Amino acid sequence: MQPGQPLRIGIFLFEECEELDWAGPWEVLAYWAKNFPDDRVEVFTLARSLEQIRCAKGLRVLPDHSWETAPPIDVLVFPGGAGTRRQLGDELLRGWVQAIAATGALMTSVCTGALVFADSGLLHGRPATTHWSTLDLLGQLDPTVELRPDDRFVDTGDVITAAGVSAGIDMALHLVRRLHSEERAKEVKRGIQYDPQPPV
Amino acid sequence: MQPGQPLRIGIFLFEECEELDWAGPWEVLAYWAKNFPDDRVEVFTLARSLEQIRCAKGLRVLPDHSWETAPPIDVLVFPGGAGTRRQLGDELLRGWVQAIAATGALMTSVCTGALVFADSGLLHGRPATTHWSTLDLLGQLDPTVELRPDDRFVDTGDVITAAGVSAGIDMALHLVRRLHSEERAKEVKRGIQYDPQPPV
Repeated sequence: MQPGQPLRIGIFLFEECEELDWAGPWEVLAYWAKNFPDDRVEVFTLARSLEQIRCAKGLRVLPDHSWETAPPIDVLVFPGGAGTRRQLGDELLRGWVQAIAATGALMTSVCTGALVFADSGLLHGRPATTHWSTLDLLGQLDPTVELRPDDRFVDTGDVITAAGVSAGIDMALHLVRRLHSEERAKEVKRGIQYDPQPPV
Repeated sequence: MQPGQPLRIGIFLFEECEELDWAGPWEVLAYWAKNFPDDRVEVFTLARSLEQIRCAKGLRVLPDHSWETAPPIDVLVFPGGAGTRRQLGDELLRGWVQAIAATGALMTSVCTGALVFADSGLLHGRPATTHWSTLDLLGQLDPTVELRPDDRFVDTGDVITAAGVSAGIDMALHLVRRLHSEERAKEVKRGIQYDPQPPV
């Protein structure tokens, strides 16, 4: 992050990305950005192109930016979803993920977004987590990953991985705390009334 | 719900609807629909028209249906957001909400969606909740409403209101339980790994 520049958070969208994987962090981070303008945070969605994205459960979203039009990214949020599978081994995507990481951006994943990070070499020798159903696959993609099945998210400094789907909300609140303060994270939590009471 | 017909759940979108208000229930209900096809559940978004919707924090979404193209609705999810304010007193919207309710649909709101329900007369003499910041306004819109500030959601039979933003996730899991079974709701909860651990 350069002095005088806003903190730019890009949320990556792709075909069959899981809706809550990105919508949870979006809400937390965009609530922060909108309600605390003096913090100078910008949140936007981006995708390979500007075409509409059809998410894993069918929701259709229009990305704010493409790879070409996106401003520099300080924090990347990479969601999971069924669409991550066909991204494994995609050299173009690997190159883009690695290029963003090489700029010093904070790389964060939700759910099976961790698979793409592993496939791009970002998790080598690190602890990490993913959706509970793909922990084995994560270990196969990179056997040096120390799997953390019981962690809601794993912060290794420049890479953060979160567990499945709804864990992105917790991870994003952690981001607000880490990038600003515990007080701010509590204000955002209060704003979105995040006092979960699962009825089952 | 007619015999032989699927259970149709419509999630209403409008300008400046709050993203997680609808994306939380969407994830829960669409996960249910997609992963348990034998349950015959259909989930779709709808809006007044098919034009793109710009949500409260700037996300742009394309609705699946308009008022004109939508199939019969068994369950309506009405989110909140800044856009609810200009809907108060909107006779066209009131008429649509009342018409859906008159078909016997289960009417559910998240966050300030309850304000629209109150404005449409749906909460008269009932207990209800909304986002913590608008409980007073809810009471002003209909003084016969019994405010429930401490409830995550309030189920009165044919109308359910949820508290702010993230409370829609809990309400939607309740819907799965009520409309199917506790077991199914637990399966959905497990699928979206909804074991919240707010870090602050």
